[in-house]
Amino acid sequence: MVETWNKESERVDDLQMKGLKIIQNPNGFCFGIDAVLLSNFCEVKKGETVVDLGTGTGIIPILIAGKSRAERITGIEIQDQVADMARRSVMMNGLSERVEIINGDLKNATDYIALSSADVVTANPPYMAAGRGIQNGNAAKAVSRHEIKCTIDQVVGTAAKLLRPGGRFYMVHRPHRLVDVICALREKRLEPKRILFIQPYKDKKPNLMLIKSVRDGKPELVFDVPMAVYREDGSFTPELSEWYEQESIEPIL
Amino acid sequence: MVETWNKESERVDDLQMKGLKIIQNPNGFCFGIDAVLLSNFCEVKKGETVVDLGTGTGIIPILIAGKSRAERITGIEIQDQVADMARRSVMMNGLSERVEIINGDLKNATDYIALSSADVVTANPPYMAAGRGIQNGNAAKAVSRHEIKCTIDQVVGTAAKLLRPGGRFYMVHRPHRLVDVICALREKRLEPKRILFIQPYKDKKPNLMLIKSVRDGKPELVFDVPMAVYREDGSFTPELSEWYEQESIEPIL
Repeated sequence: MVETWNKESERVDDLQMKGLKIIQNPNGFCFGIDAVLLSNFCEVKKGETVVDLGTGTGIIPILIAGKSRAERITGIEIQDQVADMARRSVMMNGLSERVEIINGDLKNATDYIALSSADVVTANPPYMAAGRGIQNGNAAKAVSRHEIKCTIDQVVGTAAKLLRPGGRFYMVHRPHRLVDVICALREKRLEPKRILFIQPYKDKKPNLMLIKSVRDGKPELVFDVPMAVYREDGSFTPELSEWYEQESIEPIL
Repeated sequence: MVETWNKESERVDDLQMKGLKIIQNPNGFCFGIDAVLLSNFCEVKKGETVVDLGTGTGIIPILIAGKSRAERITGIEIQDQVADMARRSVMMNGLSERVEIINGDLKNATDYIALSSADVVTANPPYMAAGRGIQNGNAAKAVSRHEIKCTIDQVVGTAAKLLRPGGRFYMVHRPHRLVDVICALREKRLEPKRILFIQPYKDKKPNLMLIKSVRDGKPELVFDVPMAVYREDGSFTPELSEWYEQESIEPIL
Protein backbone atom coordinates (compact mmCIF):
# COMPACT_ATOMS: atom_id res chain seq x y z
CA MET A 1 0.00 0.00 0.00
CA VAL A 2 1.15 3.50 -0.79
CA GLU A 3 0.88 6.07 1.98
CA THR A 4 -0.43 9.20 0.31
CA TRP A 5 -1.37 11.23 3.37
CA ASN A 6 -0.44 14.83 2.88
CA LYS A 7 -1.76 17.65 5.03
CA GLU A 8 -1.44 20.00 2.11
CA SER A 9 -4.26 18.21 0.29
CA GLU A 10 -6.65 18.77 3.22
CA ARG A 11 -9.63 21.03 2.69
CA VAL A 12 -12.26 22.56 4.96
CA ASP A 13 -15.89 21.85 4.03
CA ASP A 14 -18.88 23.76 5.34
CA LEU A 15 -21.50 21.34 6.75
CA GLN A 16 -24.26 23.92 6.24
CA MET A 17 -25.58 23.25 9.71
CA LYS A 18 -25.18 25.80 12.52
CA GLY A 19 -21.92 26.98 10.96
CA LEU A 20 -20.21 23.62 11.47
CA LYS A 21 -17.20 22.75 9.34
CA ILE A 22 -15.09 19.67 8.76
CA ILE A 23 -11.55 19.04 7.62
CA GLN A 24 -11.30 16.34 4.98
CA ASN A 25 -8.55 14.95 2.83
CA PRO A 26 -9.46 13.72 -0.63
CA ASN A 27 -6.42 11.42 -0.40
CA GLY A 28 -8.12 9.80 2.59
CA PHE A 29 -11.79 9.05 2.90
CA CYS A 30 -14.34 11.83 2.63
CA PHE A 31 -17.57 11.36 4.50
CA GLY A 32 -20.58 10.22 2.52
CA ILE A 33 -24.31 10.44 2.67
CA ASP A 34 -24.34 7.34 4.89
CA ALA A 35 -22.75 9.31 7.75
CA VAL A 36 -25.32 12.06 7.36
CA LEU A 37 -28.17 9.54 7.29
CA LEU A 38 -26.88 7.81 10.40
CA SER A 39 -26.50 11.08 12.32
CA ASN A 40 -30.11 11.90 11.56
CA PHE A 41 -31.45 8.40 12.18
CA CYS A 42 -30.04 8.20 15.70
CA GLU A 43 -32.04 9.64 18.55
CA VAL A 44 -29.96 11.38 21.20
CA LYS A 45 -31.53 12.95 24.26
CA LYS A 46 -30.33 15.84 26.38
CA GLY A 47 -27.48 14.89 28.69
CA GLU A 48 -26.75 11.53 27.08
CA THR A 49 -23.33 10.12 26.29
CA VAL A 50 -22.53 8.88 22.79
CA VAL A 51 -19.66 6.82 21.40
CA ASP A 52 -18.94 6.67 17.66
CA LEU A 53 -16.91 3.62 16.62
CA GLY A 54 -14.47 4.16 13.75
CA THR A 55 -15.22 7.84 13.59
CA GLY A 56 -12.98 8.73 10.63
CA THR A 57 -13.06 12.50 10.08
CA GLY A 58 -15.28 12.88 13.13
CA ILE A 59 -18.25 13.71 10.95
CA ILE A 60 -20.77 11.78 13.07
CA PRO A 61 -19.72 13.24 16.47
CA ILE A 62 -19.71 16.73 14.94
CA LEU A 63 -23.16 16.34 13.35
CA ILE A 64 -24.61 14.82 16.53
CA ALA A 65 -23.10 17.65 18.59
CA GLY A 66 -24.85 20.04 16.21
CA LYS A 67 -28.25 18.40 16.27
CA SER A 68 -28.52 17.19 19.88
CA ARG A 69 -27.90 18.24 23.45
CA ALA A 70 -25.71 15.23 24.18
CA GLU A 71 -23.42 15.84 27.10
CA ARG A 72 -20.41 13.96 25.78
CA ILE A 73 -19.61 12.43 22.39
CA THR A 74 -16.51 10.29 21.97
CA GLY A 75 -15.19 9.18 18.60
CA ILE A 76 -12.68 6.32 18.33
CA GLU A 77 -10.42 6.19 15.28
CA ILE A 78 -7.56 3.75 14.70
CA GLN A 79 -5.68 5.71 12.01
CA ASP A 80 -3.33 8.30 13.57
CA GLN A 81 -3.51 10.90 10.85
CA VAL A 82 -7.27 10.62 10.47
CA ALA A 83 -7.80 10.88 14.23
CA ASP A 84 -5.54 13.95 14.29
CA MET A 85 -7.57 15.56 11.53
CA ALA A 86 -10.83 14.77 13.39
CA ARG A 87 -9.41 16.37 16.53
CA ARG A 88 -8.56 19.53 14.62
CA SER A 89 -12.12 19.61 13.22
CA VAL A 90 -13.51 19.38 16.75
CA MET A 91 -11.32 22.28 17.88
CA MET A 92 -12.14 24.35 14.81
CA ASN A 93 -15.84 24.00 15.66
CA GLY A 94 -15.30 24.93 19.33
CA LEU A 95 -16.67 21.56 20.40
CA SER A 96 -13.75 20.39 22.55
CA GLU A 97 -15.81 20.45 25.75
CA ARG A 98 -18.39 18.00 24.42
CA VAL A 99 -16.55 16.01 21.75
CA GLU A 100 -13.42 13.92 22.29
CA ILE A 101 -11.52 11.97 19.65
CA ILE A 102 -9.57 8.95 20.85
CA ASN A 103 -6.82 7.59 18.63
CA GLY A 104 -7.21 3.90 19.35
CA ASP A 105 -8.56 0.55 18.30
CA LEU A 106 -12.28 0.10 18.84
CA LYS A 107 -11.63 -3.51 19.78
CA ASN A 108 -9.98 -2.16 22.95
CA ALA A 109 -12.61 0.53 23.54
CA THR A 110 -13.09 -0.47 27.16
CA ASP A 111 -9.49 0.63 27.80
CA TYR A 112 -10.75 4.18 27.26
CA ILE A 113 -14.47 4.12 28.09
CA ALA A 114 -16.20 2.41 31.04
CA LEU A 115 -18.07 -0.85 30.43
CA SER A 116 -21.87 -0.48 30.17
CA SER A 117 -21.68 3.29 30.41
CA ALA A 118 -22.85 4.71 27.06
CA ASP A 119 -26.44 5.71 26.31
CA VAL A 120 -25.88 5.60 22.57
CA VAL A 121 -23.30 3.98 20.29
CA THR A 122 -23.08 4.72 16.57
CA ALA A 123 -21.07 3.00 13.82
CA ASN A 124 -20.57 3.53 10.12
CA PRO A 125 -18.17 0.60 9.67
CA PRO A 126 -16.43 -0.67 6.55
CA TYR A 127 -19.00 -2.37 4.34
CA MET A 128 -16.87 -4.86 2.46
CA ALA A 129 -15.60 -8.12 3.89
CA ALA A 130 -11.78 -8.23 3.73
CA GLY A 131 -10.71 -9.76 0.46
CA ARG A 132 -14.08 -9.10 -1.22
CA GLY A 133 -14.45 -6.54 -4.02
CA ILE A 134 -11.68 -4.29 -5.27
CA GLN A 135 -9.55 -3.02 -2.40
CA ASN A 136 -8.24 0.51 -2.65
CA GLY A 137 -4.42 0.83 -2.95
CA ASN A 138 -4.69 3.87 -0.70
CA ALA A 139 -4.32 2.62 2.89
CA ALA A 140 -6.68 5.13 4.52
CA LYS A 141 -9.43 4.47 2.00
CA ALA A 142 -8.99 0.71 2.22
CA VAL A 143 -9.27 0.71 6.03
CA SER A 144 -12.45 2.79 5.79
CA ARG A 145 -14.07 0.53 3.23
CA HIS A 146 -12.86 -2.98 3.96
CA GLU A 147 -12.98 -5.03 7.15
CA ILE A 148 -9.23 -4.86 7.54
CA LYS A 149 -9.05 -3.48 11.07
CA CYS A 150 -12.45 -4.68 12.34
CA THR A 151 -15.27 -7.03 11.38
CA ILE A 152 -19.02 -6.66 11.92
CA ASP A 153 -18.76 -9.02 14.90
CA GLN A 154 -16.05 -6.87 16.48
CA VAL A 155 -17.95 -3.61 15.96
CA VAL A 156 -21.15 -5.11 17.36
CA GLY A 157 -19.29 -6.76 20.24
CA THR A 158 -17.72 -3.45 21.19
CA ALA A 159 -21.08 -1.66 21.06
CA ALA A 160 -22.57 -4.33 23.34
CA LYS A 161 -19.76 -3.83 25.87
CA LEU A 162 -20.01 -0.04 25.92
CA LEU A 163 -23.80 0.33 26.14
CA ARG A 164 -25.71 0.44 29.39
CA PRO A 165 -28.72 -1.92 29.58
CA GLY A 166 -31.45 -0.32 27.48
CA GLY A 167 -28.84 1.72 25.59
CA ARG A 168 -29.23 2.14 21.82
CA PHE A 169 -26.92 1.14 18.99
CA TYR A 170 -27.35 2.78 15.59
CA MET A 171 -25.50 1.37 12.60
CA VAL A 172 -25.51 1.96 8.87
CA HIS A 173 -24.55 -0.89 6.56
CA ARG A 174 -25.23 -2.43 3.16
CA PRO A 175 -28.40 -4.53 2.78
CA HIS A 176 -26.45 -7.43 1.30
CA ARG A 177 -24.78 -7.83 4.73
CA LEU A 178 -28.14 -7.88 6.57
CA VAL A 179 -27.85 -11.48 7.70
CA ASP A 180 -24.35 -10.97 9.13
CA VAL A 181 -25.48 -7.79 10.89
CA ILE A 182 -28.74 -9.17 12.31
CA CYS A 183 -27.18 -12.38 13.58
CA ALA A 184 -24.24 -10.55 15.18
CA LEU A 185 -26.61 -8.14 16.91
CA ARG A 186 -28.87 -10.78 18.38
CA GLU A 187 -25.92 -12.88 19.48
CA LYS A 188 -24.62 -9.93 21.47
CA ARG A 189 -28.10 -9.21 22.92
CA LEU A 190 -28.44 -6.00 20.94
CA GLU A 191 -31.99 -6.64 19.73
CA PRO A 192 -32.80 -5.03 16.35
CA LYS A 193 -35.84 -2.77 16.85
CA ARG A 194 -36.05 -0.52 13.79
CA ILE A 195 -34.80 -0.66 10.20
CA LEU A 196 -34.88 2.08 7.58
CA PHE A 197 -33.95 1.07 4.05
CA ILE A 198 -32.47 3.75 1.81
CA GLN A 199 -32.98 3.53 -1.94
CA PRO A 200 -31.01 5.66 -4.43
CA TYR A 201 -34.25 6.38 -6.31
CA LYS A 202 -37.92 5.58 -5.71
CA ASP A 203 -38.87 2.09 -6.93
CA LYS A 204 -35.27 0.87 -6.80
CA LYS A 205 -33.67 -1.72 -4.56
CA PRO A 206 -32.33 -0.50 -1.22
CA ASN A 207 -28.57 0.03 -1.11
CA LEU A 208 -28.17 1.21 2.47
CA MET A 209 -29.85 0.22 5.70
CA LEU A 210 -30.01 1.95 9.04
CA ILE A 211 -30.57 -0.30 12.06
CA LYS A 212 -31.44 0.65 15.60
CA SER A 213 -30.86 -2.00 18.27
CA VAL A 214 -31.46 -1.92 21.99
CA ARG A 215 -29.30 -3.70 24.54
CA ASP A 216 -31.43 -6.44 26.13
CA GLY A 217 -34.47 -5.20 24.16
CA LYS A 218 -37.55 -7.36 23.57
CA PRO A 219 -37.83 -8.90 20.09
CA GLU A 220 -40.10 -6.69 17.95
CA LEU A 221 -38.81 -5.15 14.76
CA VAL A 222 -40.45 -2.15 13.12
CA PHE A 223 -39.74 -0.96 9.58
CA ASP A 224 -39.81 2.65 8.50
CA VAL A 225 -41.21 3.61 5.12
CA PRO A 226 -38.18 3.28 2.80
CA MET A 227 -36.50 6.57 1.90
CA ALA A 228 -35.28 7.57 -1.55
CA VAL A 229 -32.25 9.87 -1.81
CA TYR A 230 -32.54 11.29 -5.32
CA ARG A 231 -35.36 12.42 -7.55
CA GLU A 232 -35.21 11.50 -11.20
CA ASP A 233 -33.54 14.81 -12.04
CA GLY A 234 -30.71 13.97 -9.62
CA SER A 235 -31.72 16.47 -6.94
CA PHE A 236 -32.35 15.34 -3.36
CA THR A 237 -35.86 14.16 -2.46
CA PRO A 238 -37.79 16.33 0.03
CA GLU A 239 -37.38 13.64 2.72
CA LEU A 240 -33.62 13.69 2.31
CA SER A 241 -33.46 17.47 2.13
CA GLU A 242 -35.15 17.62 5.50
CA TRP A 243 -32.16 15.75 6.82
CA TYR A 244 -29.47 17.51 4.89
CA GLU A 245 -29.24 20.43 2.53
CA GLN A 246 -25.62 20.05 1.46
CA GLU A 247 -25.66 18.80 -2.12
CA SER A 248 -21.90 18.71 -2.49
CA ILE A 249 -21.75 15.66 -0.26
CA GLU A 250 -19.73 12.65 -1.43
CA PRO A 251 -22.15 10.38 -3.30
CA ILE A 252 -21.69 6.81 -2.19
CA LEU A 253 -24.92 5.40 -3.57
CA MET B 1 -61.83 -23.84 21.99
CA VAL B 2 -65.07 -24.45 20.13
CA GLU B 3 -64.87 -26.89 17.25
CA THR B 4 -66.91 -25.31 14.49
CA TRP B 5 -65.90 -27.51 11.55
CA ASN B 6 -68.86 -28.31 9.41
CA LYS B 7 -68.58 -29.70 5.92
CA GLU B 8 -71.82 -27.98 4.99
CA SER B 9 -70.14 -24.59 5.28
CA GLU B 10 -67.49 -25.55 2.72
CA ARG B 11 -67.45 -23.76 -0.60
CA VAL B 12 -65.59 -24.24 -3.88
CA ASP B 13 -63.62 -21.23 -5.13
CA ASP B 14 -62.33 -20.78 -8.67
CA LEU B 15 -58.61 -19.95 -8.62
CA GLN B 16 -58.87 -18.33 -12.08
CA MET B 17 -55.75 -20.16 -13.21
CA LYS B 18 -55.93 -23.03 -15.69
CA GLY B 19 -59.38 -23.98 -14.38
CA LEU B 20 -58.04 -24.79 -10.91
CA LYS B 21 -60.43 -24.77 -7.98
CA ILE B 22 -60.11 -25.04 -4.23
CA ILE B 23 -62.40 -26.15 -1.42
CA GLN B 24 -62.40 -23.76 1.52
CA ASN B 25 -64.35 -23.48 4.72
CA PRO B 26 -65.02 -20.00 6.06
CA ASN B 27 -65.25 -21.59 9.52
CA GLY B 28 -61.67 -22.69 9.06
CA PHE B 29 -58.95 -20.61 7.47
CA CYS B 30 -59.32 -19.35 3.91
CA PHE B 31 -56.11 -18.78 1.99
CA GLY B 32 -54.84 -15.24 1.68
CA ILE B 33 -52.77 -13.19 -0.65
CA ASP B 34 -49.66 -14.39 1.19
CA ALA B 35 -50.12 -17.92 -0.20
CA VAL B 36 -50.52 -16.54 -3.71
CA LEU B 37 -47.43 -14.36 -3.33
CA LEU B 38 -45.38 -17.28 -2.03
CA SER B 39 -46.47 -19.57 -4.89
CA ASN B 40 -45.33 -16.96 -7.38
CA PHE B 41 -42.14 -16.06 -5.56
CA CYS B 42 -40.82 -19.61 -5.51
CA GLU B 43 -38.93 -20.90 -8.53
CA VAL B 44 -39.68 -24.53 -9.39
CA LYS B 45 -37.99 -26.28 -12.31
CA LYS B 46 -39.23 -29.14 -14.43
CA GLY B 47 -38.99 -32.50 -12.70
CA GLU B 48 -38.30 -31.09 -9.23
CA THR B 49 -39.85 -32.26 -5.97
CA VAL B 50 -41.52 -29.79 -3.65
CA VAL B 51 -42.70 -30.05 -0.04
CA ASP B 52 -45.13 -27.53 1.45
CA LEU B 53 -45.05 -27.39 5.25
CA GLY B 54 -48.39 -26.73 6.97
CA THR B 55 -50.25 -26.75 3.70
CA GLY B 56 -53.73 -25.92 5.05
CA THR B 57 -56.25 -26.07 2.20
CA GLY B 58 -53.49 -27.22 -0.17
CA ILE B 59 -53.51 -23.86 -1.91
CA ILE B 60 -49.74 -23.70 -2.38
CA PRO B 61 -49.28 -27.24 -3.82
CA ILE B 62 -52.23 -26.64 -6.16
CA LEU B 63 -50.94 -23.26 -7.38
CA ILE B 64 -47.41 -24.65 -7.83
CA ALA B 65 -48.82 -27.64 -9.73
CA GLY B 66 -50.60 -25.14 -11.98
CA LYS B 67 -47.62 -22.87 -12.63
CA SER B 68 -44.75 -25.35 -12.79
CA ARG B 69 -43.71 -28.71 -14.17
CA ALA B 70 -42.74 -30.05 -10.76
CA GLU B 71 -42.77 -33.84 -10.72
CA ARG B 72 -44.09 -34.25 -7.19
CA ILE B 73 -45.54 -31.82 -4.67
CA THR B 74 -46.25 -32.97 -1.12
CA GLY B 75 -48.25 -30.94 1.37
CA ILE B 76 -48.11 -31.73 5.09
CA GLU B 77 -51.03 -30.65 7.27
CA ILE B 78 -51.53 -31.48 10.94
CA GLN B 79 -55.28 -30.82 11.19
CA ASP B 80 -57.30 -33.89 10.09
CA GLN B 81 -60.30 -32.09 8.66
CA VAL B 82 -58.19 -29.51 6.85
CA ALA B 83 -55.93 -32.20 5.35
CA ASP B 84 -59.03 -34.10 4.22
CA MET B 85 -60.39 -31.01 2.52
CA ALA B 86 -57.03 -30.39 0.82
CA ARG B 87 -57.01 -33.98 -0.46
CA ARG B 88 -60.45 -33.52 -1.94
CA SER B 89 -59.29 -30.31 -3.65
CA VAL B 90 -56.35 -32.21 -5.17
CA MET B 91 -58.70 -34.91 -6.50
CA MET B 92 -61.20 -32.36 -7.78
CA ASN B 93 -58.41 -30.75 -9.83
CA GLY B 94 -57.22 -34.11 -11.19
CA LEU B 95 -53.79 -33.55 -9.62
CA SER B 96 -53.55 -36.80 -7.61
CA GLU B 97 -50.63 -38.09 -9.66
CA ARG B 98 -48.44 -35.08 -8.85
CA VAL B 99 -49.79 -33.76 -5.56
CA GLU B 100 -50.02 -35.68 -2.30
CA ILE B 101 -51.42 -34.41 1.00
CA ILE B 102 -50.03 -36.02 4.14
CA ASN B 103 -52.04 -35.66 7.34
CA GLY B 104 -49.21 -35.39 9.82
CA ASP B 105 -47.03 -33.18 11.96
CA LEU B 106 -44.34 -31.31 10.05
CA LYS B 107 -42.01 -31.82 13.02
CA ASN B 108 -41.98 -35.51 12.06
CA ALA B 109 -41.76 -34.86 8.31
CA THR B 110 -38.84 -37.25 7.88
CA ASP B 111 -41.20 -40.09 8.89
CA TYR B 112 -42.88 -39.51 5.53
CA ILE B 113 -40.27 -37.92 3.28
CA ALA B 114 -36.61 -38.93 2.85
CA LEU B 115 -33.95 -36.77 4.50
CA SER B 116 -32.15 -34.36 2.15
CA SER B 117 -34.37 -35.30 -0.77
CA ALA B 118 -36.44 -32.22 -1.67
CA ASP B 119 -35.42 -29.68 -4.30
CA VAL B 120 -37.77 -27.05 -2.92
CA VAL B 121 -39.55 -26.52 0.40
CA THR B 122 -42.23 -23.87 0.92
CA ALA B 123 -43.88 -22.61 4.11
CA ASN B 124 -46.57 -20.09 4.95
CA PRO B 125 -46.45 -20.67 8.70
CA PRO B 126 -48.43 -19.03 11.50
CA TYR B 127 -47.19 -15.48 11.94
CA MET B 128 -47.99 -14.86 15.59
CA ALA B 129 -45.94 -16.17 18.50
CA ALA B 130 -48.16 -18.30 20.77
CA GLY B 131 -49.66 -16.12 23.44
CA ARG B 132 -49.09 -12.90 21.46
CA GLY B 133 -51.97 -10.92 19.96
CA ILE B 134 -55.61 -11.96 20.09
CA GLN B 135 -55.97 -15.70 19.56
CA ASN B 136 -59.00 -16.89 17.61
CA GLY B 137 -61.51 -18.97 19.61
CA ASN B 138 -61.91 -21.11 16.50
CA ALA B 139 -59.35 -23.94 16.76
CA ALA B 140 -58.60 -24.25 13.03
CA LYS B 141 -58.05 -20.50 12.64
CA ALA B 142 -55.93 -20.31 15.78
CA VAL B 143 -53.62 -23.14 14.60
CA SER B 144 -53.19 -21.40 11.24
CA ARG B 145 -52.35 -18.04 12.75
CA HIS B 146 -50.53 -18.74 16.01
CA GLU B 147 -47.45 -20.81 16.72
CA ILE B 148 -49.47 -23.41 18.61
CA LYS B 149 -48.39 -26.51 16.70
CA CYS B 150 -45.05 -25.28 15.39
CA THR B 151 -42.57 -22.44 15.88
CA ILE B 152 -40.35 -20.69 13.33
CA ASP B 153 -37.41 -22.79 14.54
CA GLN B 154 -39.34 -26.01 13.97
CA VAL B 155 -40.50 -25.02 10.50
CA VAL B 156 -36.99 -23.96 9.50
CA GLY B 157 -35.45 -27.05 11.09
CA THR B 158 -37.78 -29.31 9.13
CA ALA B 159 -37.02 -27.50 5.88
CA ALA B 160 -33.29 -27.95 6.53
CA LYS B 161 -33.76 -31.68 7.06
CA LEU B 162 -35.86 -32.21 3.94
CA LEU B 163 -33.79 -30.18 1.48
CA ARG B 164 -30.94 -31.61 -0.55
CA PRO B 165 -27.69 -29.57 -0.45
CA GLY B 166 -28.31 -26.59 -2.73
CA GLY B 167 -32.08 -27.00 -2.34
CA ARG B 168 -34.21 -23.87 -1.92
CA PHE B 169 -36.51 -22.86 0.91
CA TYR B 170 -39.18 -20.21 0.26
CA MET B 171 -41.06 -18.74 3.19
CA VAL B 172 -43.51 -15.90 3.70
CA HIS B 173 -43.67 -14.16 7.06
CA ARG B 174 -44.27 -10.85 8.76
CA PRO B 175 -41.44 -8.28 8.73
CA HIS B 176 -41.65 -7.80 12.50
CA ARG B 177 -40.41 -11.42 12.84
CA LEU B 178 -37.44 -10.85 10.51
CA VAL B 179 -34.81 -11.30 13.20
CA ASP B 180 -36.30 -14.59 14.40
CA VAL B 181 -36.57 -15.83 10.82
CA ILE B 182 -33.08 -14.78 9.69
CA CYS B 183 -31.33 -16.15 12.76
CA ALA B 184 -33.21 -19.48 12.57
CA LEU B 185 -32.32 -19.83 8.88
CA ARG B 186 -28.63 -19.19 9.31
CA GLU B 187 -28.43 -21.45 12.34
CA LYS B 188 -29.82 -24.30 10.23
CA ARG B 189 -27.46 -23.50 7.34
CA LEU B 190 -30.28 -22.27 5.14
CA GLU B 191 -28.57 -19.09 3.95
CA PRO B 192 -30.95 -16.22 3.12
CA LYS B 193 -30.31 -15.18 -0.50
CA ARG B 194 -33.25 -13.04 -1.60
CA ILE B 195 -35.91 -10.95 0.15
CA LEU B 196 -38.98 -9.32 -1.36
CA PHE B 197 -40.89 -6.94 0.89
CA ILE B 198 -44.59 -6.51 0.20
CA GLN B 199 -46.29 -3.22 1.05
CA PRO B 200 -50.08 -2.80 1.15
CA TYR B 201 -49.72 0.48 -0.76
CA LYS B 202 -46.81 2.33 -2.34
CA ASP B 203 -44.88 4.44 0.17
CA LYS B 204 -46.14 2.40 3.11
CA LYS B 205 -44.22 0.13 5.46
CA PRO B 206 -43.85 -3.50 4.40
CA ASN B 207 -46.25 -5.92 6.09
CA LEU B 208 -45.17 -9.16 4.44
CA MET B 209 -41.78 -10.53 3.44
CA LEU B 210 -40.85 -13.35 1.10
CA ILE B 211 -37.50 -14.99 1.78
CA LYS B 212 -35.56 -17.41 -0.39
CA SER B 213 -32.81 -19.40 1.34
CA VAL B 214 -30.41 -21.98 -0.04
CA ARG B 215 -29.15 -24.96 1.92
CA ASP B 216 -25.41 -24.48 2.46
CA GLY B 217 -25.51 -21.34 0.27
CA LYS B 218 -22.80 -18.66 0.38
CA PRO B 219 -23.68 -15.51 2.33
CA GLU B 220 -24.90 -12.84 -0.11
CA LEU B 221 -28.36 -11.37 0.23
CA VAL B 222 -30.16 -9.61 -2.62
CA PHE B 223 -33.25 -7.46 -2.23
CA ASP B 224 -35.99 -7.20 -4.82
CA VAL B 225 -37.66 -3.87 -5.49
CA PRO B 226 -40.50 -3.80 -2.90
CA MET B 227 -43.93 -4.65 -4.32
CA ALA B 228 -47.17 -2.84 -3.50
CA VAL B 229 -50.42 -4.84 -3.53
CA TYR B 230 -53.08 -2.16 -3.89
CA ARG B 231 -53.39 1.08 -5.79
CA GLU B 232 -54.98 4.03 -4.04
CA ASP B 233 -58.40 3.11 -5.47
CA GLY B 234 -58.15 -0.33 -3.83
CA SER B 235 -57.55 -2.26 -7.07
CA PHE B 236 -54.51 -4.50 -7.47
CA THR B 237 -51.29 -2.91 -8.75
CA PRO B 238 -50.09 -4.08 -12.20
CA GLU B 239 -47.19 -5.98 -10.55
CA LEU B 240 -49.59 -7.91 -8.35
CA SER B 241 -52.05 -8.50 -11.18
CA GLU B 242 -49.28 -10.16 -13.15
CA TRP B 243 -49.12 -12.66 -10.33
CA TYR B 244 -52.81 -13.06 -9.66
CA GLU B 245 -56.03 -11.82 -11.20
CA GLN B 246 -58.46 -13.06 -8.58
CA GLU B 247 -59.69 -10.02 -6.68
CA SER B 248 -62.01 -11.96 -4.37
CA ILE B 249 -59.01 -13.27 -2.49
CA GLU B 250 -58.99 -13.06 1.31
CA PRO B 251 -57.35 -9.75 2.21
CA ILE B 252 -54.82 -10.31 4.95
CA LEU B 253 -52.92 -7.07 4.60
